[in-house]
Amino acid sequence: MKSFENVRGMRDFLPDDLTKRKFVEGRVRDCFRSYGYEEVETPVIEYLDLLSARAGEEIRHRMFAFKDLGGRNVALRPEMTASIARVIATKLRLEAKPLRIGYIANCFRYDNPQMGRYREFWQAGFELFGSRSLEADAEIITVNNDLMKRLGFSDFFIKIGDVRILRGLLGSERINESDQSAIMGLVDKRKIKSVISFLEERKVSNDCLKTVKKILNLKGTDYQRIVNEARKILTQSEASLKALNDLETVINLAQLSGVETPFLLDVGFARGLEYYTGMIYEIFVSDLGIALGGGGRYDGLVELFGGEHTPAVGCAPGIDRIVLAMEKKNLFPASLGATDKVLVIPVSEALSAKALEITAILRSNGISAQNEVTGRSIGAALSYADKKGYSYTIIFGPRELEKNCVTIRFMKTKEQKEVLISEIADNIKHS
Amino acid sequence: MKSFENVRGMRDFLPDDLTKRKFVEGRVRDCFRSYGYEEVETPVIEYLDLLSARAGEEIRHRMFAFKDLGGRNVALRPEMTASIARVIATKLRLEAKPLRIGYIANCFRYDNPQMGRYREFWQAGFELFGSRSLEADAEIITVNNDLMKRLGFSDFFIKIGDVRILRGLLGSERINESDQSAIMGLVDKRKIKSVISFLEERKVSNDCLKTVKKILNLKGTDYQRIVNEARKILTQSEASLKALNDLETVINLAQLSGVETPFLLDVGFARGLEYYTGMIYEIFVSDLGIALGGGGRYDGLVELFGGEHTPAVGCAPGIDRIVLAMEKKNLFPASLGATDKVLVIPVSEALSAKALEITAILRSNGISAQNEVTGRSIGAALSYADKKGYSYTIIFGPRELEKNCVTIRFMKTKEQKEVLISEIADNIKHS
Repeated sequence: MKSFENVRGMRDFLPDDLTKRKFVEGRVRDCFRSYGYEEVETPVIEYLDLLSARAGEEIRHRMFAFKDLGGRNVALRPEMTASIARVIATKLRLEAKPLRIGYIANCFRYDNPQMGRYREFWQAGFELFGSRSLEADAEIITVNNDLMKRLGFSDFFIKIGDVRILRGLLGSERINESDQSAIMGLVDKRKIKSVISFLEERKVSNDCLKTVKKILNLKGTDYQRIVNEARKILTQSEASLKALNDLETVINLAQLSGVETPFLLDVGFARGLEYYTGMIYEIFVSDLGIALGGGGRYDGLVELFGGEHTPAVGCAPGIDRIVLAMEKKNLFPASLGATDKVLVIPVSEALSAKALEITAILRSNGISAQNEVTGRSIGAALSYADKKGYSYTIIFGPRELEKNCVTIRFMKTKEQKEVLISEIADNIKHS
Repeated sequence: MKSFENVRGMRDFLPDDLTKRKFVEGRVRDCFRSYGYEEVETPVIEYLDLLSARAGEEIRHRMFAFKDLGGRNVALRPEMTASIARVIATKLRLEAKPLRIGYIANCFRYDNPQMGRYREFWQAGFELFGSRSLEADAEIITVNNDLMKRLGFSDFFIKIGDVRILRGLLGSERINESDQSAIMGLVDKRKIKSVISFLEERKVSNDCLKTVKKILNLKGTDYQRIVNEARKILTQSEASLKALNDLETVINLAQLSGVETPFLLDVGFARGLEYYTGMIYEIFVSDLGIALGGGGRYDGLVELFGGEHTPAVGCAPGIDRIVLAMEKKNLFPASLGATDKVLVIPVSEALSAKALEITAILRSNGISAQNEVTGRSIGAALSYADKKGYSYTIIFGPRELEKNCVTIRFMKTKEQKEVLISEIADNIKHS
């Protein structure tokens, strides 16, 4: 029956999958602690208006939007930045700044499901509010870079740009903000021809057209050379030149903070979200070709949601993609999720009361212990213990109980040993 | 602007709120480990049919249901048991049984918001599949009881009953299953008069009417006396008598497993969900009057979703209500969420590069360290450090740097101390 399957694009995390995701989340929380980001959670359901305000066309049309039973136009969050900015604009309005906020959250987009892309997906985030300094930009890159290293990635690079470079150039040709956003959207999708015809329609100068074509292809890991070339091309826009200088400084500051990862400077870089106002970046594992995270500066968002003007910069590592990349690179520890467990098996159901007592003793000693609750044969129970990865079984009948004893079976070696009930815990802990 | 508020019934977890919830979740996961429950996660969005199948009228009308962009009738899960049963019926169909599954998940119901009740709320769950034994029932009660103790609750009790008692009686009067479910729903809401008129319409015997009235009011903590009285009343139904015997055994087995909590046996007990087929229970903190969790046996659900016949018993501690009760009872540790953090403050922005280096050193020593990223005065930065609960600040200017030194300020005592940069970590760790 169809209704008893997963809805298309949705997935279950079975124990092994979940253990992997929780491992990544654990490392994210280590970074929260180390860098001083305080974790918050916001609701899955928000007003559609809030989520649409600066989401960008691409995402706006892929939201799970509906009316709730009270007739409110709501949607499931497609990303977290709008919700976090709302919290900063309202409940945390009076908090001392800078304010470092972290989150780990499921988000929802009606995308075409494909390898590693689901309609419910998990993102982490680090958001730094209240600093317009370039150290703040560098900090966000540093924490994301650190997370990658803590997860075990070695061969990755950081693609970096600044939306002010292209926007500055367009602004100097009097292209308005909304047209700028449309163009940035096309650039993000690398629809270069459409960008050019859009600009031709808007009758920009030939010089400008040439400059746009050049910077859309200007990128490289030799970032100082790229900056110098871009400076020569972008003379007509003060804003673009300022952005280039800032980018160079941010990279230097990140390096001072310990980032040894190569930077790929992409002068014509754009990202799907409309709210960015400065530096933007994405982290790529060299041979995988998908971004495992990215972020940027978004100084206008908190104000847009009714807060004070609050400069902000943040990043969103993609948990699902990280898990996928770690699987491909074999980065999960071999012993991940393994616990020593004990299965307690009485030889007859008549002894199950005693089994419950023994299990309770083991648990109170901090040992993971379960009862055989089916009444099947010892052979069947032992085969179950094998399948489920039990390290120990405890077997006993009336003969053992007379002596206050049980038999411990070490499942790997198949060795057995008779011990006093009062000494089970010691035998298991020290084996 | 209204759209920038929370949608009615939704809430944000600010850092302190979230720390509390995570503390409770941590204890739940301790119980997962101790009792061998493997954690899974299922999607927030499921087919409406799946979620409606056995949810009960009450919940069915309060779901967040909508069509997705592909025209599918879906809803946000109002509880987790249906989703978990779906996973058991499909992806875990071939797993060795018994299978112990745990979850911590947000669920959604369009209820009237009130103290401690939100439209997005958090539930944990322990579900034991593949055992029809009474030890399994006892295990579920034991783990829930143990969770309460690990959280620090002392004065609570377990209200217990069995749906087969009332259903058995109704069945012996040839009331069909669907009418039985309607009656159980009325009993759950304690609409006793409606129960009686429903039965009168169905023309049940006067004896039966009398019996129903009696058992709907038969309850007490002296559970052996209650069982004996109920036995005298329920002679006409074998099923009811069997259920009473089983209840007595389950209570005894739970006590053997270490449960010392009083049991309130409620012979006329019903719960809102339709899928229960045997023992049901709820845990109450004595002076708060709200259930902090509950559960029961539901042997038919996996089969209903296309799986093999799989006996099942489970419980769902309510995370939100537990947090609320712990706040009222002052059960959270005083130091919850406290970390020793260091704020690094250069006397001028020109030294911020050096500050980044120092912070990086501290982090690589496992210390939570942040940079002052605003360029404000030292006085302002110190006042910020106070507000945000920093344990230490590190201050330095050109004079200190010449000697490779910084000043550590211990924020609580306001003491200061000049130390070598290479010795900061040691001074902080050992202070």
